[in-house]
Amino acid sequence: MKKDSKEEIVKAAITLFNSNGYAGTSIRDIATVAKVNSATIAYHFENKLGLLEYCFTYFFEQYLSIIEEKFSLMDTGVKDCLKRITADLLHYQCENIELTSFVYREMSMDSQVVREIMSTYALKEKYYFQKIFEKGFERKEFRPHSIAYLIIQYKGLLMMPFINAHYLREVLYIFPNERFFEQKYLKEINSWIENTLGTKIIEKKEAIL
Amino acid sequence: MKKDSKEEIVKAAITLFNSNGYAGTSIRDIATVAKVNSATIAYHFENKLGLLEYCFTYFFEQYLSIIEEKFSLMDTGVKDCLKRITADLLHYQCENIELTSFVYREMSMDSQVVREIMSTYALKEKYYFQKIFEKGFERKEFRPHSIAYLIIQYKGLLMMPFINAHYLREVLYIFPNERFFEQKYLKEINSWIENTLGTKIIEKKEAIL
Repeated sequence: MKKDSKEEIVKAAITLFNSNGYAGTSIRDIATVAKVNSATIAYHFENKLGLLEYCFTYFFEQYLSIIEEKFSLMDTGVKDCLKRITADLLHYQCENIELTSFVYREMSMDSQVVREIMSTYALKEKYYFQKIFEKGFERKEFRPHSIAYLIIQYKGLLMMPFINAHYLREVLYIFPNERFFEQKYLKEINSWIENTLGTKIIEKKEAIL
Repeated sequence: MKKDSKEEIVKAAITLFNSNGYAGTSIRDIATVAKVNSATIAYHFENKLGLLEYCFTYFFEQYLSIIEEKFSLMDTGVKDCLKRITADLLHYQCENIELTSFVYREMSMDSQVVREIMSTYALKEKYYFQKIFEKGFERKEFRPHSIAYLIIQYKGLLMMPFINAHYLREVLYIFPNERFFEQKYLKEINSWIENTLGTKIIEKKEAIL
């Protein structure tokens, strides 16, 4: 058994789950691409579902640790804190396009494993975003607004280029793997933070009065 | 053969493709739910791929006809035209949640049929949005901005609640099938049109000067 076989299996699984979907990928396909035999996969992950759970956990553990790490910055400025989280999440997703794309796609299914992942990670993520938005309202850095609807928009912006990576490439000629994309797209989300969350317009109105 | 068997097959396929994914659904599953035999499905759609193509075409034909129908309103006001298109697209998606969810999920795969659908419908859709944005810049109803990046954001807003329908229900307690959601979410997209596309802020600045 190769020392790095586990890593090779995960890499192969991510590529295949992304291009053929979870249901469209067999353990045999993964074994072929990873150059291991099926027993090695069974040894590390039990079965295909175990491998899917591993990918979900791997993705969301890192995703949440980014939020947790920057969360404490909230005390010095809520808007800046959210911008730092956004930059790091976007960077993480751009560095892991295949994983991000397939995790978001598979999370749209209504299965047992998805429900379990949601009840752990998505609830934690919601907790953090809720705290950030509430603090932003309290400090008047953000205009008061429905938190759930802000989360929909914010997460929509973060997810869209990865769920639709082919669409971006084939139709819009935008390549989410390029450094230029990351920089440009970050500016877009930041201006959403300024324009939709921020109190800019209200300040302007006050300036007029 | 029942007269309405074709319709029953499509209904069953949409439900099953949505809950189990295209790859996770068999012709036999569809036959069972639609209460027909597999030969009837073969008669109407040849095979599972034929049924998928039918669903894609069915979805995008209606989607595009909404845009085409309202497109001519552009001459009387670009922003209003885009708002009318948004209202109708959102309404259409809310009325067809299962179809919308599964079509968006399957469109994230890189397959032959997806590439074909993209080269027909997604290019047409891009053509219309491009014209709308360009006219908006020309008439100074919209601030000049990268069209591709505007399309990403606009489509992201339109797609997010349907790709993540379970997430909305389970985590945010928002129900995309309720009339209230449609009204509230339309307001959110409209304020994106006002704040991100619109020239509001610039006007304010001029008012200050």
